[in-house]
Amino acid sequence: MKLATYQDGSRDGQMVVVSRDLTQAHYATDVANRLQQVLDDWNYLSPALQDLYTQLNQGRARHAFAFDPAQCMAPLPRACRLLEGGAYLHHDELAYRARAEALPESRRAAPDLSEVACDDLSGPRQVIHCVDPAWGPDFSAQLAVIAADVPAACAPDRALDAVRLLALVNAVTLQQPPAESHAGPVQIRLATALAPVVVTPDALGDAWLRGRLHLPVQCSWNGRKVGLCEAGADMHFHFGQLIAHAAATRRLRAGTLLASGTVCNEGVARKSGTDWPHGYSCIADKRAMETLQDGQPATGYLQVGDTIRIEVKGRDGVSVFGAIEQTVVAS
Amino acid sequence: MKLATYQDGSRDGQMVVVSRDLTQAHYATDVANRLQQVLDDWNYLSPALQDLYTQLNQGRARHAFAFDPAQCMAPLPRACRLLEGGAYLHHDELAYRARAEALPESRRAAPDLSEVACDDLSGPRQVIHCVDPAWGPDFSAQLAVIAADVPAACAPDRALDAVRLLALVNAVTLQQPPAESHAGPVQIRLATALAPVVVTPDALGDAWLRGRLHLPVQCSWNGRKVGLCEAGADMHFHFGQLIAHAAATRRLRAGTLLASGTVCNEGVARKSGTDWPHGYSCIADKRAMETLQDGQPATGYLQVGDTIRIEVKGRDGVSVFGAIEQTVVAS
Repeated sequence: MKLATYQDGSRDGQMVVVSRDLTQAHYATDVANRLQQVLDDWNYLSPALQDLYTQLNQGRARHAFAFDPAQCMAPLPRACRLLEGGAYLHHDELAYRARAEALPESRRAAPDLSEVACDDLSGPRQVIHCVDPAWGPDFSAQLAVIAADVPAACAPDRALDAVRLLALVNAVTLQQPPAESHAGPVQIRLATALAPVVVTPDALGDAWLRGRLHLPVQCSWNGRKVGLCEAGADMHFHFGQLIAHAAATRRLRAGTLLASGTVCNEGVARKSGTDWPHGYSCIADKRAMETLQDGQPATGYLQVGDTIRIEVKGRDGVSVFGAIEQTVVAS
Repeated sequence: MKLATYQDGSRDGQMVVVSRDLTQAHYATDVANRLQQVLDDWNYLSPALQDLYTQLNQGRARHAFAFDPAQCMAPLPRACRLLEGGAYLHHDELAYRARAEALPESRRAAPDLSEVACDDLSGPRQVIHCVDPAWGPDFSAQLAVIAADVPAACAPDRALDAVRLLALVNAVTLQQPPAESHAGPVQIRLATALAPVVVTPDALGDAWLRGRLHLPVQCSWNGRKVGLCEAGADMHFHFGQLIAHAAATRRLRAGTLLASGTVCNEGVARKSGTDWPHGYSCIADKRAMETLQDGQPATGYLQVGDTIRIEVKGRDGVSVFGAIEQTVVAS
């Protein structure tokens, strides 16, 4: 099934069930007001949502209305935890290679996870507030899962069963903060945005295979397509491995978001050097590619007024999560 | 006023108002069930809680009952964000000096903040689950504030007005994970524990002065007093500065916890070297002191069955937050 959260003036919004093709929606009020409530009590509450989803797809839901992504908050406007892990080693490798360094071998053994702020997840159309655009705002297209409760020291295969929902994420960062700002990992992360809809694994069909989503992630920058990276093939650590490493020493609580890190494909060797035919899912990757090809980066970071659009389409051409469409504003 | 959260079988528990001397409590059900609800709507909801607090202290609350810290969850069992900052530079400096390095000058300019998991904050009597006690579990006594909404780029003085509540924290870490575990910052942090009660600044009297709490933090390890560090004098960055640096590039949302980092006082120069008469608030600090005095650490980390007790008493001898009392168990 597909779930979203409509704005209602509150901090957590109102959950809606959304049809498979994202055309129709229905308030889930009879089941729960908030997605976190459903995550807290999934086995009890999700069957009624699943029924509503079936009715909606069959045109039998009596109070259905046209789904409007512009009314959406993040499906989980404030989560209890957000972890981000370097599942795509080619992304990490690009950064190292552009500095003429090799990716440390330890990166291949376990995902490099970090905690990210989860108090203020942006809706799909919310603007990117940037105190100073000279700090180099960048987008980053990522996939994420929302996990169930996970016991400590859970094995990766079992951890995979804890995937409740998949999400599409724009992890916005500031790549060039000035030294005098003393900006660290906390300050360089702006609000993380989520696509309108989260999706259960069963609604993804065979595109969801052993913890990886085998679909391309489309990124457009000011209307120009800049990325169509395959999310499945080059995902070194699958989501079960990310969850298991996150739970290595302590349990995870239901509603924890685990993001993959920037989706990135391996470069292809050509006569004239390496080429990246699938493009890029963050500007930092593009700049690293330029550095490897030409000795220096040519592409600048986001400017005020720039728009980023991120979307994943199924093999049938239907948008899986709806699109993230964000504009940079100075604030 | 003083607030706590009683276990009721749910993930978020039931908020109670607690008397100044921690002897009496009263359910806050008529006002709100959960502390986060009050933080979301502080100006509207907190006056009724304040009235209840006054009645409780005057013995006029009709349904008061004896307050039992053993029934407490963390006052905020799952927060939307937890940041930890190195407010006590002497703590950071100890670690550097024990490695024969100098504290980087940048540490004196801005607090070194990091995101910490906030999905699963432990109650004051919850055990410390440790998958493998050989990994060197350590306690860390810290003060924290719970903030209101804070706009981006807020000045430190104004940020201080956003302090809604103060808390006492045990930030439990694993100091010696084996290399083959590939444990990073995420895995070495176990659940952070909170003392039973959170306290509004006005209830602290003149011990709360310009963003610092001028009281000693008592730490006992298996019943032996090991620390009585003064929290006020050596706090290099006050809580307004921590909040402002956290909000340098983005707003903070109500309910964000900001922890100070390990409370630590400056060493005193003696003929025979440096002495730390106030003791320590984490074992890592003790081991650094031993390294500086004797060339190597002598004290081991926590063992299974060990108990840690952390408490802050007011100048009148009354416990401010109640005590954290945790035992290490293998799990």
